[in-house]
Amino acid sequence: MSDPLDTLAIVGVGLLGGSVAAAARRNGLVRRVVGIGRNRERLEAARAAGLLDDIGTDVAALHDASLIVVCTPVDQIARDVAEIVPVALPSALITDVGSVKGPICREVDADPRTRGRFVGSHPIAGSEQQGWEHASPDLFRGRTCVITPTESSRAEHVEQLERFWSALGMVTVQLSPEEHDRNLALTSHLPHVAASALASLLSDSSRPFAATGFRDTTRVAAGSPDLWVPILLQNADAVTERIAELSDRLEQLRDAIRRQDAAAIHKILADGQTQRQRLH
Amino acid sequence: MSDPLDTLAIVGVGLLGGSVAAAARRNGLVRRVVGIGRNRERLEAARAAGLLDDIGTDVAALHDASLIVVCTPVDQIARDVAEIVPVALPSALITDVGSVKGPICREVDADPRTRGRFVGSHPIAGSEQQGWEHASPDLFRGRTCVITPTESSRAEHVEQLERFWSALGMVTVQLSPEEHDRNLALTSHLPHVAASALASLLSDSSRPFAATGFRDTTRVAAGSPDLWVPILLQNADAVTERIAELSDRLEQLRDAIRRQDAAAIHKILADGQTQRQRLH
Repeated sequence: MSDPLDTLAIVGVGLLGGSVAAAARRNGLVRRVVGIGRNRERLEAARAAGLLDDIGTDVAALHDASLIVVCTPVDQIARDVAEIVPVALPSALITDVGSVKGPICREVDADPRTRGRFVGSHPIAGSEQQGWEHASPDLFRGRTCVITPTESSRAEHVEQLERFWSALGMVTVQLSPEEHDRNLALTSHLPHVAASALASLLSDSSRPFAATGFRDTTRVAAGSPDLWVPILLQNADAVTERIAELSDRLEQLRDAIRRQDAAAIHKILADGQTQRQRLH
Repeated sequence: MSDPLDTLAIVGVGLLGGSVAAAARRNGLVRRVVGIGRNRERLEAARAAGLLDDIGTDVAALHDASLIVVCTPVDQIARDVAEIVPVALPSALITDVGSVKGPICREVDADPRTRGRFVGSHPIAGSEQQGWEHASPDLFRGRTCVITPTESSRAEHVEQLERFWSALGMVTVQLSPEEHDRNLALTSHLPHVAASALASLLSDSSRPFAATGFRDTTRVAAGSPDLWVPILLQNADAVTERIAELSDRLEQLRDAIRRQDAAAIHKILADGQTQRQRLH
């Protein structure tokens, strides 16, 4: 972005919000970062650590922000946008970082007060860690950011968002909110479900025999259920469809192993290997 | 181990066999390492790289070894042991590194020529990579090695094996071959099945949206189907039972998401998180 933004507001200063603040500041995209949250002590610590310039526990604190990034749990984002719009500059662009886009974009578009004021973003980056202490200005570098305009979105907002996420090192892609949700159900929500289900089967007696394979396969299961339950609920249709696909594939493998059908097992493992190797 | 072994023989010089050679040598456990394999060029390269002192494409080359570690695919190990016994020193201890133990130990015990000459080992360490070029003397450090004696095993062999794997930095545990297979079905074979099934669902259109969560959850799916098909076939009963448990858990999650039952989803995710966090 050629002109630095005067003020960037981050609503919800956790791992992602903190990383947006850190990355925007390091890349010289903003003159000032204001952080909004519920817990004043945590915000003060983030300011003391140099992540934020100003803080507030009320959305009034973002009144002069030109870009507002909502980083709260997915089931709160539309409500937060509705609270933000009345106090924000009319020219301010409001976006988010939520992992589900359909319900948020539909709710924002359905309310005449918020319609046209918000464009959804999903920078696909994260970690199973929580809290701004784990924030990193490099979290987004080389990753994909999906921007999900709707018919109410202003072209200049979409362009501004593309420049912003690109300036943080991301490759931007535009999808409809629904396409986003179908894709992410497979690439993010289903892995979380599978990892959680697998990890939940571990017991005290089997734990000593879990090595790197088990650890890697279940890493994301260490993430907070408080963040993930709303994601799964908000993307219920696509996620349940993807779980059914995974269950079918597991059932095919189980049948093949039971029949001692080496060729059928090999086919699925080889498909998985090919797909995995295409991810660098 | 106080006295270094005169000669260690590695049958099958891949990632694991090469790592046993490298670790035994670096820890001063052996005076000489002989590598046996099918491909003379690959063996010569491993010798040139300093991993092996001598090589052979026939088991006759291990005639003077005091410890023989069979690192071939799990469906070949019992057959390899039957070929090795007639040419090995009567005092030689023969073991393996296979990920399945029941069928191998039963086959060895059922043959009067091999009974009592072999004790199974499973050093739980590895990687999705293949080939001795990726071997590391640190692969075993801090990991668990399961030793699976049977009623035919000699106590001094079991003790010798415990000393050997401990000297490579491993924590040794004794289990029956069947207990080993039930535990590993959960902690190693099921993650492979889940990762492969999940990876196989990826497509060209969804690949751009796969980030670190998908990558980690599917990492082991990059492993060779040629190694994994025999493992799944040899441990068919325990693996199919574990797949059924995972499918049940996935089905519970799918039902809970469909019903929008936040508490039921939270319970499974929280169980998974607790189990995952107990793995350090």
